[in-house]
Amino acid sequence: MALHVVADFYGVKPDILKRVEDLKPKIDEIINRSGLKSIKDVWHQFEPHGVSCVYLLRESHVSLHTWPEDGYVAIDLYYCGKEQKRVLDAYEMLYELFKPSKVIKNVITRPVPSEDGSPN
Amino acid sequence: MALHVVADFYGVKPDILKRVEDLKPKIDEIINRSGLKSIKDVWHQFEPHGVSCVYLLRESHVSLHTWPEDGYVAIDLYYCGKEQKRVLDAYEMLYELFKPSKVIKNVITRPVPSEDGSPN
Repeated sequence: MALHVVADFYGVKPDILKRVEDLKPKIDEIINRSGLKSIKDVWHQFEPHGVSCVYLLRESHVSLHTWPEDGYVAIDLYYCGKEQKRVLDAYEMLYELFKPSKVIKNVITRPVPSEDGSPN
Repeated sequence: MALHVVADFYGVKPDILKRVEDLKPKIDEIINRSGLKSIKDVWHQFEPHGVSCVYLLRESHVSLHTWPEDGYVAIDLYYCGKEQKRVLDAYEMLYELFKPSKVIKNVITRPVPSEDGSPN
């Protein structure tokens, strides 16, 4: 099964959430260290502050959307590969980076059809 | 609240799922017709076939990942704007395009902190 972690982080210090140039090197490093295989990443700077990004992976995607004024980050880690430890490691590194005071986390299992067989 | 539709479409005819050049014009049109505001989109062609894409929106993102050999598409529509009809319209248009024989759909509500007030 593929793993889709949908996580809302609250109580994050705003400074790290404001600008692409501050956040991107840290997220790049987390993606690399986790072993997730990024194909392309796309970032957007909102004004006066706030960032959205998506990493398209060989095995689905990772996205972050930040609301610095509220200390909030919406995170998705959707991973259809076989090395699920990588996505759990990436999640832990994001948690360490953002140090949220509160988390709402949903983990959805989604199919990898060729691996799981027919859904019917 | 923001709306995150997580949908797995099964039983889709494979031809439309194989190549970026076939799928991208159709998804571009759906995004435009729905009124969702795309900032950037990023596409990847897998070989021998299969496609991943993400549209970064002003209001979060839309992603698709296809497995043509299994007639399967994994769809995410995550929308933090006020015009939720747009995301429901986009979903309906995707349904019409792909005509799945089976759907597994989860709708997650996520916060828009400034609008919803403090989560604490």
